[in-house]
Amino acid sequence: MLAAHLAVVGLGLIGGSVARALRAAGVVGRISGYDPDPRQREDALAAGVIDTAHSSAAACVREADLVIVAVPVLRTVEALSAIRDALRPGTIVTDVGSTKQSVATDVEQVFGELPPWFVLGHPIAGTEKSGVSNSLADLFRKHRVILTPHRCQDAVALSTVRRLWEACGARVVEMAPAQHDLIFAATSHLPHVLAYSFVDMIGKLDDSAGIFPNAGGGFRDFTRIASSSPQMWHDIVRANAAAVSDLLTRQIADLQALQDMITSGRWDEMKATFERARAAREHYLTQIE
Amino acid sequence: MLAAHLAVVGLGLIGGSVARALRAAGVVGRISGYDPDPRQREDALAAGVIDTAHSSAAACVREADLVIVAVPVLRTVEALSAIRDALRPGTIVTDVGSTKQSVATDVEQVFGELPPWFVLGHPIAGTEKSGVSNSLADLFRKHRVILTPHRCQDAVALSTVRRLWEACGARVVEMAPAQHDLIFAATSHLPHVLAYSFVDMIGKLDDSAGIFPNAGGGFRDFTRIASSSPQMWHDIVRANAAAVSDLLTRQIADLQALQDMITSGRWDEMKATFERARAAREHYLTQIE
Repeated sequence: MLAAHLAVVGLGLIGGSVARALRAAGVVGRISGYDPDPRQREDALAAGVIDTAHSSAAACVREADLVIVAVPVLRTVEALSAIRDALRPGTIVTDVGSTKQSVATDVEQVFGELPPWFVLGHPIAGTEKSGVSNSLADLFRKHRVILTPHRCQDAVALSTVRRLWEACGARVVEMAPAQHDLIFAATSHLPHVLAYSFVDMIGKLDDSAGIFPNAGGGFRDFTRIASSSPQMWHDIVRANAAAVSDLLTRQIADLQALQDMITSGRWDEMKATFERARAAREHYLTQIE
Repeated sequence: MLAAHLAVVGLGLIGGSVARALRAAGVVGRISGYDPDPRQREDALAAGVIDTAHSSAAACVREADLVIVAVPVLRTVEALSAIRDALRPGTIVTDVGSTKQSVATDVEQVFGELPPWFVLGHPIAGTEKSGVSNSLADLFRKHRVILTPHRCQDAVALSTVRRLWEACGARVVEMAPAQHDLIFAATSHLPHVLAYSFVDMIGKLDDSAGIFPNAGGGFRDFTRIASSSPQMWHDIVRANAAAVSDLLTRQIADLQALQDMITSGRWDEMKATFERARAAREHYLTQIE
């Protein structure tokens, strides 16, 4: 048993899926849940995802020995402020935010420090769907979860959160927050920005009505992430602005270089770029676990 | 019966698949095939895709009443020059090139005009795999084929090629070559350039070895087309350079605008861009047939 009483603050896709997975694994006792949206609370209760629904975050965590904060990343300060005075000594708190340096700053702002019992985490899973009604007990199975331990991290808190994610079927990896934020700017945040910008550019063309019906499977895959939640990706890009902006600068420079190759007919250089990219992706495919 | 004798010049994925599809539909008699690569000829013959293999394109088409030229788009002049003097009067010739203005220019260069019996075509189908051994009888089923009729087009030639593709299970759409080239620059050629450039940019980062293992499903889909043949996409971008370059200019400007929003904190504008893109993509999804 990892926790006699688990509290889930934020009953969305991630919060709901963690509750389901831990319940299915039999590693937690009672589960209480909070969400500002009454509909999510009712859905979670009706589906048996939680045992008790609370209309206040403080009430939700008051008796818990393990708290998972699963709110949009720009709501972290608000959520932590709401639970701060209700946490019992010894309670372990962890989060699921897609950016880790911004959450670390938020935690310091609310608690005055990075407390030993706060574990920064990020499960690499999700779908384009949202809300507790789309949550799944096996959402994290065979997925990675990144933990970014800090200088004052308590070893028991860290290992408890590690075991929490392992009980969900995930594989836990540890790294520094700055490394996390660079890696996910590269593999996730920038691709979303590029996909949104590309679809927007096409949509603004005079002939866009004639263009879309001719798009095929390559287009569909390339633009799939542009169907993700604009609010959520606004939050993430904003929370990781420095890393995203740095990579975007490189990307624009590289596209300008390709443009120069095309307009000046340096075709061998262009082909060499395509070949490097294909080789890099083939190498990446060998590393997927 | 569309043709008593079909000749396929270029026994790759597309040429092989057309031959298989037309044979399965029972609309052609004998099928002769040519490829510069003896291996492709042998594979095509062994698999029963063709009845006769020729080591010269001229010999392959000499007795045909319908010829499909299915070669890489930059090899069009070479292929047409090879068959020019062997074509019988009345033989219908069509191609499968991904760019249509460049092929029209190539045809004019070889024949001195756009002959009435030459039909410009482009089947919107393919996989990342290549070669006749990967060809499939149902590759074109429920896919679009674009035909770009020209001013002197013979009506019988056009309707024969239309029925050819309909026999393969495809839906035929007609449009002007310039419109075709803009549409496919937008839905296919530019996405390939962007995907190659993005993967190359990530691959060049100092920490790229640590980045790729953390990439998830979104990254995999977004970069899938960067595993396509660099040679083929070199050819296509080169053959459609003006349209691709124009869109790339717009894309770079839009990315620069997004970069400015991020660095100056104009978050509402950034979110509005994401929202427009998502709406455009949702609209596009309603148009997929």
